[in-house]
Amino acid sequence: MIIIGERINTSRPGIEPAVRNRDVAFIQEEAGKQVQAGSCYVDVNCGTLLEEEPAALSWLVQTVQEKVEVPLCIDSPNPLALALALKEHKGKALINSISGERDRYEQIVPLVREYKAGVVALAMDDTGMPSTAKDRIRVAGNLIDKLTQNGVPLTDIYIDPLIQPISTDGTQAMAVLETITTIMNTYPGIHTVCGLSNVSFGLPGRGLLNRSFMIMCIAAGLDAVICDPLNKEMIKAIYAAEALAGTDEYCMEYISEFRNGRLD
Amino acid sequence: MIIIGERINTSRPGIEPAVRNRDVAFIQEEAGKQVQAGSCYVDVNCGTLLEEEPAALSWLVQTVQEKVEVPLCIDSPNPLALALALKEHKGKALINSISGERDRYEQIVPLVREYKAGVVALAMDDTGMPSTAKDRIRVAGNLIDKLTQNGVPLTDIYIDPLIQPISTDGTQAMAVLETITTIMNTYPGIHTVCGLSNVSFGLPGRGLLNRSFMIMCIAAGLDAVICDPLNKEMIKAIYAAEALAGTDEYCMEYISEFRNGRLD
Repeated sequence: MIIIGERINTSRPGIEPAVRNRDVAFIQEEAGKQVQAGSCYVDVNCGTLLEEEPAALSWLVQTVQEKVEVPLCIDSPNPLALALALKEHKGKALINSISGERDRYEQIVPLVREYKAGVVALAMDDTGMPSTAKDRIRVAGNLIDKLTQNGVPLTDIYIDPLIQPISTDGTQAMAVLETITTIMNTYPGIHTVCGLSNVSFGLPGRGLLNRSFMIMCIAAGLDAVICDPLNKEMIKAIYAAEALAGTDEYCMEYISEFRNGRLD
Repeated sequence: MIIIGERINTSRPGIEPAVRNRDVAFIQEEAGKQVQAGSCYVDVNCGTLLEEEPAALSWLVQTVQEKVEVPLCIDSPNPLALALALKEHKGKALINSISGERDRYEQIVPLVREYKAGVVALAMDDTGMPSTAKDRIRVAGNLIDKLTQNGVPLTDIYIDPLIQPISTDGTQAMAVLETITTIMNTYPGIHTVCGLSNVSFGLPGRGLLNRSFMIMCIAAGLDAVICDPLNKEMIKAIYAAEALAGTDEYCMEYISEFRNGRLD
């Protein structure tokens, strides 16, 4: 599982003041903890800073990369902020995100190409956010076709099927699972990625729903997730699900994490 | 979800002496607790008593039905024990189990018909226990054809795809999920049922694996499970998975169980 650590996001408590104050020690500790907990990428998002976002995002990239060896997931819809941050980034970044919306696509695809970055591709376009599996698969398929025609290899594309709350539409979780399975079977080598917390919006016991959905997504073929790697129950769910899905050969990772006390 | 409470089984600690001593209070308390915790059926199994099994199974049926209103899942491969127990049972029992093995099939199908009982049908035959999804689906399909030809309605059949340990074969969990989905889509109205604990045999953290597998099974379409309804983590997994699978309309059951403190 490709774990993308989500904690450095100014919408989370404590992060915005740390970024505003350029608190190097605080941010580097957040980064270090997430890598130690198994993150393959550290996400950086300071979208709440609005016009100060571009400068802050570049600072985050520099600050985090001084501390950790893993690449970053640079998380912004703003092409200018992305461009400045990518300029600072060492190694192969993951851009979060592009979509099928025409303006956004055209502004961001040159950055994906220039930096040979991976890219999270949201299954939405100018007609809006699809609700059924069929529409998600169609919109994602169009986006994959365009990206590959523009020279982005399948292995650099991370399709996000955009989960919506089950509290308002009980079909949303199953629609996302079907999308994941179809995309993974249709485009060998591609990745699928999911943020989880939307699924439980408006319901109690959100952690239970989020990690249960994670388990279902892994059975459906999901291979990347944006989550908090310090959430022990989520990590337990991920390792158990991978053992069950047969992607953890001989359950070696599961057994090893168990022995290290991370799954107690 | 059709929860079949598994606690009254002489292979579990404390149950065998209680059955040997005909301890009515103990057995009735075990039955009552399981129904209060949401069991739709109470399983009774005293297979470890060997030649004393038939008399003990009949006693269990009488004793449990004095206490609870739900029907029983009468759990024995022994046709004589089943026949005696069914004679005592009030209402529509669930026989656990028949299989495609010729002798077993021919001895048990008359009981299913005579008592118009539901029946757990194991996906195995005289060639052994299938390992792939394809073989499970073929064996289960043959068994379903025979049962329906013998007058058993689809709605009385509970196919058990027979999970085997992932520790020895990493493909087993996914093969069972594929079997469940195919059976449920091919035979509308049929049920699928699963015992869970085999999946984690030989691994640490078995509860985590068992409930994670349960969540995957529900996403695949499973509608019945043999489990311990007093296992709170398992119950949480079941309610969360049903909310996600869209089988719990407007998440009403999930919300109600949460309010009652059962999902804390």
